[in-house]
Amino acid sequence: MVRFPEVMLRLPDWVEEFVVDEVYPTTEDRMRLAVDLSRENVRRGTGGPFGAAVFERESGRLVAPGVNLVVSAGCSVFHGEMVAIMVAQKALGDFDLGSPSYPAHELVTSTEPCAMCLGATPWSGVRRLVCAARDADARAVGFDEGSKMKDWIPKLEERGIAVACDVLREDAVAVLREYAQTGGEIYNSRGGASSERNP
Amino acid sequence: MVRFPEVMLRLPDWVEEFVVDEVYPTTEDRMRLAVDLSRENVRRGTGGPFGAAVFERESGRLVAPGVNLVVSAGCSVFHGEMVAIMVAQKALGDFDLGSPSYPAHELVTSTEPCAMCLGATPWSGVRRLVCAARDADARAVGFDEGSKMKDWIPKLEERGIAVACDVLREDAVAVLREYAQTGGEIYNSRGGASSERNP
Repeated sequence: MVRFPEVMLRLPDWVEEFVVDEVYPTTEDRMRLAVDLSRENVRRGTGGPFGAAVFERESGRLVAPGVNLVVSAGCSVFHGEMVAIMVAQKALGDFDLGSPSYPAHELVTSTEPCAMCLGATPWSGVRRLVCAARDADARAVGFDEGSKMKDWIPKLEERGIAVACDVLREDAVAVLREYAQTGGEIYNSRGGASSERNP
Repeated sequence: MVRFPEVMLRLPDWVEEFVVDEVYPTTEDRMRLAVDLSRENVRRGTGGPFGAAVFERESGRLVAPGVNLVVSAGCSVFHGEMVAIMVAQKALGDFDLGSPSYPAHELVTSTEPCAMCLGATPWSGVRRLVCAARDADARAVGFDEGSKMKDWIPKLEERGIAVACDVLREDAVAVLREYAQTGGEIYNSRGGASSERNP
């Protein structure tokens, strides 16, 4: 009898076909992929409106895409950023994307990371974080970003992780709004509701 | 050609045999399991000195154990708490351990959660967090807990998650110290060193 099951993280089938290019020269090119992934993830019904990807910072080579798979995979950890990080580390065979053995890596995400993904960012080894929609944009449509320090950007920079915000912000916000307006499930929002139902 | 690999989370083989009981009546019983897992994880060479487990809060039934598998699995996300959460959710077939369909769950961890695991705790749906060693104990032997708000305990409590600290703290600290004294690898410590080597 298996008491404790294995957990498999597998990107949806559509991702391999959807992601055509191998290299994304500019920051905007990289963010466009993340936002396109967020939109396609909703259209395909495989998760929430969040996309991310890990790239080699200098070359722009795509190492791993990520999409939110919380509901479809039944795992609250599978935010877009976490998925991209885990797949990238598996692709490299190393828990540290910041090892001197590799070129520097960056994480590009369609919405600023929640508290969990923010905490995961330094451990991943990426040297740059690029964001489109802001925390406030996600909160505006009902998502809970968790308890984050107001100075999370300088805190990352102190650790040698550069941060760029508002890259293609409007495009990412449009995906969030479309999701909310079409009645998409707002999971991972555990504030008051959760306390009330299970005190 | 598979461009983006699957990621498998699998508890080490020794865990199934090591975890004998199905029910852990008291908080101390549950923490003893978490600390025993942390110690055994080091002895077996499967990871760092961190153990955790998810239990049904009232009954004390063990849902999932977790141990740190960062180095052995090559994944920076696989902290003990994250492993326990992911395996528990897989066992239940639900991303939300706080769903009204189930009894309330709690997360028991041999060291206070790092920034990532803290951020993951509300998303997991657990209604209580029980900790042994403090942040400061982990930092004292060289581990980096990340950037956490000083008031992280009240912040969890505001979300309806009870917190209990210092449960079997000395036992957990002994495992941390033994690990550090025997030259165990301090991974996930990216502060200055990482910035220096990869600016």
